[in-house]
Amino acid sequence: MLMNRVFRYELPTLIEFGIGALQNLASRVEELGGTKVLVVGDPGVSQAGLLDRVEDVLERASIQYVEFTNIQSDPDIESVDEGIRLAKEESCDIVVGVGGGSALDTAKAIGLMLGNSGHITDYVGLNKVPNRGAPVIAMPTAAGTGSEVTVWSVLSNRAAKEKVSIGSVFNCPALALLDPELTVSLPPTVTAATGMDALTHAIESYVNKATQPISECLARQAIDMIAKNLRLAVVQGDNLTARYNMSLASLIAAMAFNSTRLGLSHALAIPLGAHFHIPHGVVNAILLPEVMQFNVIGNIDKYQDIGRIFDGSPNLSARETAEYSAVAVRRLKEDVGIRQSLSDYGVRESDLKYIAEEAMLSGNVPVNPRKPTIEDLMDICRAAMEQ
Amino acid sequence: MLMNRVFRYELPTLIEFGIGALQNLASRVEELGGTKVLVVGDPGVSQAGLLDRVEDVLERASIQYVEFTNIQSDPDIESVDEGIRLAKEESCDIVVGVGGGSALDTAKAIGLMLGNSGHITDYVGLNKVPNRGAPVIAMPTAAGTGSEVTVWSVLSNRAAKEKVSIGSVFNCPALALLDPELTVSLPPTVTAATGMDALTHAIESYVNKATQPISECLARQAIDMIAKNLRLAVVQGDNLTARYNMSLASLIAAMAFNSTRLGLSHALAIPLGAHFHIPHGVVNAILLPEVMQFNVIGNIDKYQDIGRIFDGSPNLSARETAEYSAVAVRRLKEDVGIRQSLSDYGVRESDLKYIAEEAMLSGNVPVNPRKPTIEDLMDICRAAMEQ
Repeated sequence: MLMNRVFRYELPTLIEFGIGALQNLASRVEELGGTKVLVVGDPGVSQAGLLDRVEDVLERASIQYVEFTNIQSDPDIESVDEGIRLAKEESCDIVVGVGGGSALDTAKAIGLMLGNSGHITDYVGLNKVPNRGAPVIAMPTAAGTGSEVTVWSVLSNRAAKEKVSIGSVFNCPALALLDPELTVSLPPTVTAATGMDALTHAIESYVNKATQPISECLARQAIDMIAKNLRLAVVQGDNLTARYNMSLASLIAAMAFNSTRLGLSHALAIPLGAHFHIPHGVVNAILLPEVMQFNVIGNIDKYQDIGRIFDGSPNLSARETAEYSAVAVRRLKEDVGIRQSLSDYGVRESDLKYIAEEAMLSGNVPVNPRKPTIEDLMDICRAAMEQ
Repeated sequence: MLMNRVFRYELPTLIEFGIGALQNLASRVEELGGTKVLVVGDPGVSQAGLLDRVEDVLERASIQYVEFTNIQSDPDIESVDEGIRLAKEESCDIVVGVGGGSALDTAKAIGLMLGNSGHITDYVGLNKVPNRGAPVIAMPTAAGTGSEVTVWSVLSNRAAKEKVSIGSVFNCPALALLDPELTVSLPPTVTAATGMDALTHAIESYVNKATQPISECLARQAIDMIAKNLRLAVVQGDNLTARYNMSLASLIAAMAFNSTRLGLSHALAIPLGAHFHIPHGVVNAILLPEVMQFNVIGNIDKYQDIGRIFDGSPNLSARETAEYSAVAVRRLKEDVGIRQSLSDYGVRESDLKYIAEEAMLSGNVPVNPRKPTIEDLMDICRAAMEQ
C-alpha cells in the first residue's frame, strides 16, 4: 500500500540537544538576527525559576528581552492576542518559548502572527498561513508534546468550548533548543501525563496508515526509549539519564508524527479536553490502551512490534503479542500513577454522542488503522469511563 | 559519553518520495519560483532515456530548460565551472540534478555558485559558504550516495589527483524528489556498488562516536532495508519493491550520516578513489569488511546489533555476533558480485603510506569508533589488497 502513494518528509526546525544547551541560547538569538526577545513562559515555569535561568543567559550577553507569562494550560486565543500586542509594542523580533506544550504553542502562534496580517483564527486548519513569521526558539521544559518541532499550535476558544489547530510549516520553530536539565524539576504527575502523551504520539504514528519507513523508525525508537525511561523519570525525578532520554524520545516521536498525523486517541482527546478540561496527556493516557485494543486487528504486525518492545514473552503468538501491547501500555500508565477514568472528569453517557461526532471530524481519523463508526468511538469512551 | 555533548540534527531538504513522484517535478519547479531550469545529468542517465523522461514533464508544463551533461564519474571542478557558465548564459534560476552522486554533486555545486561569488574551490571544507544558492531539486537514479539530502559535494581535482569536499547547509538541495522507477534501469554492477556505498554510510554512522538516537534509528533502519533488499535489486533489476526499498534506504542512510560523518572506510576511500580511479561504491565495499573487523572492539554493542540484523545466530555471544557482522557484510559484497581487491586497481604496497597519511587528515577519522595509527590504516589496505 505504501508503494501506491507519494509521501513527504520534512523537518524545517534545526535541533540542538544536550545538557548545557541552554548556554547556547544567546548565540542562537544573535545568529537568527534577533535584537529583542519576547520570552514566553507559563506561570509554572516562572515559579520553578526556569525563566530566570533563561533570562540570565540573555542578560549576560546583553540581549534585551520582555517577559510574557499570562498563559493558562490549554492556552487560549486571548493569550496569543495579548502576546502579539506586547511583542509589537516592545518591538520584539524573535520569540523564545519556554515551557510545556501550552507555552510553546502560544510562542509559536505569536511568532507566526508577527509576520502575517489578520487574526490567528484566520489560519485555523492545515497550510493556511501565507508568510513566515518572526523566528521562534522553542525550549521545552516537559517531555511530551514535541511542539518544539511540530507544525501545530493547538489553542482553546473557551467561549465556544472548542480547541482549534493551526498547522503550517511556517509554524515550525526555527530552532528547537532542548536542555534536559530544564525538565528535572517537573513534578511526577506532569512527567507522567506528558510522557504518556509522547508515547501516544509515537504509537499512533507507528501504526497508522500514513506511516512510512522514515517516520516508522523514529516512532519505534521513541516507543523503545519511553518504555525504558518513563517510569524512572516519574519515580526518580532527578535521574538525569531518564530525563535526557524522555526529552529525546518526545522530540523523536514528534519528528515521526509531524509527517503522519496520529489516530483515534488524539481525535477523541481534543473534544474531551475542550469540554471537560482534562489535561491533554492524561486524556491520551486514559484513551490509549482502549484505542490500541480496538485498533489491533488493523495492524497486527505493528502492534506485535510494540508488544515486543514492551518485553512481550517470545512464547506468545503474533496476535497475542499484538494484544499484549495494550496490556503493557495500560500497566505503564498505572505504574506512573494515572488511574483516573473519564468519569472522574465528569464525562457521562449522555456526552458520548457529541464527543464522538466532534472526534469524527478530526484529520486523525482517516489515517487510523481501523476505520471507526460513531458507535465505535462511543464504545472506546465507555471503556475509558470504567477504568 | 553522549550525555556530555550537545548535538545537532538538521534536515534542510524537503523529501518527496514515491513511485510517480517524477510527475510532480513541474509543480515543484514552479513552487520554488523557478522560471528556467538547468537540467544536470550524466551521459549514462541521458543514454538510459531518463533525461528525456524528466524533460518531458517540464515540456508538458511549458517550463523552459537547458541540458548539461558534460559530467564524468568522480565529477571534476571543470564540469562545475562549465555548468555555471551555461546556467548564467542561459539565465537559469533553478537546477534539477538527475543521476548518481556525480550528477547530483555537480548540480548542487552549480546551484550553490549561482548565489555565491568567487570560485567553487574557495568553499572547500565545512561551512565556508556565505550565501544560499539557486534552489536545487535532486532526483537520484541510483541508490547510494544520498547526495539528494547531504551537505556534501565531492569534486575531483584531476591535475592534483585529489578530491575536495564542499560541505554546507546551503549545499543541501531544496527538494529531494525520489521516484524509485528511475532506478530500475541501473545495471547490476552499479546497483551493487552504489548499494554497498549506502550500506557503508549506514554502518559507519551507526557505530561512530558522533552517533545519537536520531541518527542511530535512521542508520539501523537503512542497514535493515539494505540487508533485505540489495541482493534482490542486483539480481532482479526490475523488482520494483527492492528498488523502492533501496532508494529509501540510501536516503535514510544519508539522513543519518549527514549529522554524524562516517568512518575509516570513507576516510580511505577518498584518496584511493582519487589516485586509482576506483568507483566510490566499489572501494567502500572492498574496505568495509576490513574496517568493521578492525573497529569491532570499539563498539561491540553496535556491531552486535548489525550482526543480528544480518541474521546472526542467537546462539552466538555478543562478541561473536559483533564479529559475524563483518563476515555477513563480506558475504553480501561477494553475493552482489564485488570480488575485486585493491590490487586489481593497481594499488601497491609502496602506495599505502601516502594513502594512509592522506586518509588520516579526513574528518571521518576522529569520529571512528577505534582510533587508528598510520600503520593500522596501512594494515586495513593490505587486507583489502589480498581479498
